[in-house]
Amino acid sequence: MKLLIDRKGRKYIMKDGEDLHTNYGMVSGADIAAAEPGAEVESNRGVKFAVLEPNIIDYIDKAKRGPQAMTLKDMGVEVAYAGVHSESRVLEAGTGSGLFTMYLAHVVAPETVVTYEVRDDFAAIARKNFERFGIQNVRLEVRDIYEGVGENGLDAVFLDLTEPWRVVPHLLEALKTGGMLVSYSPSINQSRQLFDVLEGGYMHETFECILRNWKPDKMSPDTRMIGHTGFITAARKVC
Amino acid sequence: MKLLIDRKGRKYIMKDGEDLHTNYGMVSGADIAAAEPGAEVESNRGVKFAVLEPNIIDYIDKAKRGPQAMTLKDMGVEVAYAGVHSESRVLEAGTGSGLFTMYLAHVVAPETVVTYEVRDDFAAIARKNFERFGIQNVRLEVRDIYEGVGENGLDAVFLDLTEPWRVVPHLLEALKTGGMLVSYSPSINQSRQLFDVLEGGYMHETFECILRNWKPDKMSPDTRMIGHTGFITAARKVC
Amino acid sequence: MKLLIDRKGRKYIMKDGEDLHTNYGMVSGADIAAAEPGAEVESNRGVKFAVLEPNIIDYIDKAKRGPQAMTLKDMGVEVAYAGVHSESRVLEAGTGSGLFTMYLAHVVAPETVVTYEVRDDFAAIARKNFERFGIQNVRLEVRDIYEGVGENGLDAVFLDLTEPWRVVPHLLEALKTGGMLVSYSPSINQSRQLFDVLEGGYMHETFECILRNWKPDKMSPDTRMIGHTGFITAARKVC
Amino acid sequence: MKLLIDRKGRKYIMKDGEDLHTNYGMVSGADIAAAEPGAEVESNRGVKFAVLEPNIIDYIDKAKRGPQAMTLKDMGVEVAYAGVHSESRVLEAGTGSGLFTMYLAHVVAPETVVTYEVRDDFAAIARKNFERFGIQNVRLEVRDIYEGVGENGLDAVFLDLTEPWRVVPHLLEALKTGGMLVSYSPSINQSRQLFDVLEGGYMHETFECILRNWKPDKMSPDTRMIGHTGFITAARKVC
Repeated sequence: MKLLIDRKGRKYIMKDGEDLHTNYGMVSGADIAAAEPGAEVESNRGVKFAVLEPNIIDYIDKAKRGPQAMTLKDMGVEVAYAGVHSESRVLEAGTGSGLFTMYLAHVVAPETVVTYEVRDDFAAIARKNFERFGIQNVRLEVRDIYEGVGENGLDAVFLDLTEPWRVVPHLLEALKTGGMLVSYSPSINQSRQLFDVLEGGYMHETFECILRNWKPDKMSPDTRMIGHTGFITAARKVC
Repeated sequence: MKLLIDRKGRKYIMKDGEDLHTNYGMVSGADIAAAEPGAEVESNRGVKFAVLEPNIIDYIDKAKRGPQAMTLKDMGVEVAYAGVHSESRVLEAGTGSGLFTMYLAHVVAPETVVTYEVRDDFAAIARKNFERFGIQNVRLEVRDIYEGVGENGLDAVFLDLTEPWRVVPHLLEALKTGGMLVSYSPSINQSRQLFDVLEGGYMHETFECILRNWKPDKMSPDTRMIGHTGFITAARKVC
Repeated sequence: MKLLIDRKGRKYIMKDGEDLHTNYGMVSGADIAAAEPGAEVESNRGVKFAVLEPNIIDYIDKAKRGPQAMTLKDMGVEVAYAGVHSESRVLEAGTGSGLFTMYLAHVVAPETVVTYEVRDDFAAIARKNFERFGIQNVRLEVRDIYEGVGENGLDAVFLDLTEPWRVVPHLLEALKTGGMLVSYSPSINQSRQLFDVLEGGYMHETFECILRNWKPDKMSPDTRMIGHTGFITAARKVC
Repeated sequence: MKLLIDRKGRKYIMKDGEDLHTNYGMVSGADIAAAEPGAEVESNRGVKFAVLEPNIIDYIDKAKRGPQAMTLKDMGVEVAYAGVHSESRVLEAGTGSGLFTMYLAHVVAPETVVTYEVRDDFAAIARKNFERFGIQNVRLEVRDIYEGVGENGLDAVFLDLTEPWRVVPHLLEALKTGGMLVSYSPSINQSRQLFDVLEGGYMHETFECILRNWKPDKMSPDTRMIGHTGFITAARKVC
């Protein structure tokens, strides 16, 4: 795959041989395939595009997403607080459109991420995203995590669920001692209900992570910003 | 190594065979060595400690640090925006006390992190931290990155320097096309000067990431918080 | 004047006798004039509107404004930090569309606010706003405050200017000892240049005030918010 | 009264004739009384103090306060959102140590603020603050506002109570149509319960106001900040 960037900074991820059709004209798949990263290709209307190798950030940017998809900063923070890396064994629920799944797959590769999604329609979107970007180290199961967890000895469990507290009883077996539960919720009321079941057995903290963009040339923050994504609870199983 | 946690949540990282001396009495190294993760050990005054395997977060928590060390959330966000993972080739400057170096080593293992530090005293602190926690995939060089970079084909360069803009000319060779420059600065004025040299050749953004802790049981944020860590510029080399 | 509110919460400020024309039909000026605060009036299509007495907040909401107009929270904070109230003698520059002027006039009444605006077109917008809402205790002068201040013994001076530091020399005479200079700027660079001239003679602080809206029923902040309005410097002349 | 400021910026509010005893020596009450605002007085050890007229901000700074006292920015924002000014008729509950009462008295003077406090000990602290600073336009009643409100036709009611929602039924009579209820709570759960009773009859919004101090010379925010004061609900009675 190749990443093309137009002069407005818009990104296009192209499969090998695929032609790109844009408002600036058409770029032939053969030209794209022949271009080295860092080179430029030209459309049939003479407009130039930079060519790069796509990375995980591009995949996440360009994946099909639902309205509530996690943002990159929350992904980075969740992974940092969970302390996971290559070969960690992690479970995620729910998958949603699979963006965070893709990020986790990138982090733990060559290990496989296990992800549960209860809704067929979401699972279908996620599968398409995995296929489109060639993400192979994912095992997606359509199942309800409130009913139980079919893994054990996990290093970390990542939740993005309406009722995360209902998963905690299943972690007695599934999560290794010292492992991390990381839960993401839009409402502080969800964090509170999770908090209520974590007492005893977990060391935990709850926080939100707020990203504020700046215009460095103006030495001024952006006028508009995302004011809220989610509350994160990071909990370590200590016994 | 083992991680011991006392009833107040304080952490102790113990080498094999080392005795732990605390206000709650002494725990013998033999007892610690014999304990399985999840077990408890008892001091000679009958006080219990939980025993776990330490992870990268514990190492970062317990490392010797200077006053300006990066926080875990900024580490996670920088790594996410850089898109690096196992086997990525990364360079860091300056090392400081080596906390972020340790995090990067955890991310890119088995690849080796290269890190430059101009001050001998900081390099010495960092080396002690790496030794203490058994971090081996780091190559620390005492040198001034403003003078030049001795690597090439890097996937990402992470800077925590007073004058990050002085490094940019060296990245023409050192950073691969499509690679990421991520710079962390306390002052927006530093971001501005970096911005001024990035025009042409980089797609970039500048932001700060603010972590706000909550008391979920009170549904109220903490009264006091860290109001500022640093401004982050994430820049992708596009030609 | 009367304030009408439709079922979507939209506000209409009506002069005595004026008919209201909306998508919900027409409400006759006579009906509006006859309605007591708290009553409802009906349009000719049977749609109801609540009727209230308008207050300063409504005037500010409904005034014609430029893109950079101050928000109510910054107005409230500036007035609080300046310590001004009824009968305080205050000067403002620049007037802009006059929204903060209207707020200051409401605060210091029956005293008259003096406000300087260098641009004729802005002064014209401001004058229309004052007339429309019957604000009489304002003296608007079209003049350049960088050239000098024609008042003295002022309790407070409020600035919303590109180069606020150029006003400070004029305050030796204009601002009473113990009086307050409050300056509002979009860029921290402006605050810095003001800071540089305040040394000696002023006790001062610089801050920003960030308003975050919540959905209390969801126990969740709004997804989108205004990320930045301005940096405020509040300085007290001590000699 | 006079305000003295030492070279470290510490403030002292002195009654006429009172001597000031500090680590820098003693300043005689006669010298203080003779000093004009803007002049300096000298202690018997030759250390100088600036002399000013105190204002409401100084009174609030120097008043005896409990741990939960409102901050100046929230006072300014509450007053702005309530739209009150000189001669507005306002009720406050609970008084606490009376700092916001003092601010309200400054805003509505010559009108009298009515304030209810259920605890005798808090009422005693508040009374001492009013006496010390010569605040006369306050009527403090030791009574439980949950039992009822003895005023009517109020322009605004300001609450800082554990269960603000219990006051709403009493406002049917007490608050004029178009009047404002402004409530301050540390927990978003309190805002939620207030929200639940406001439906029908009120237009309302809930927000928090976060103040972030900057070091303009460093172009950097302060490292530590107050992360939370309170959630504010501003509600307008529309029928």
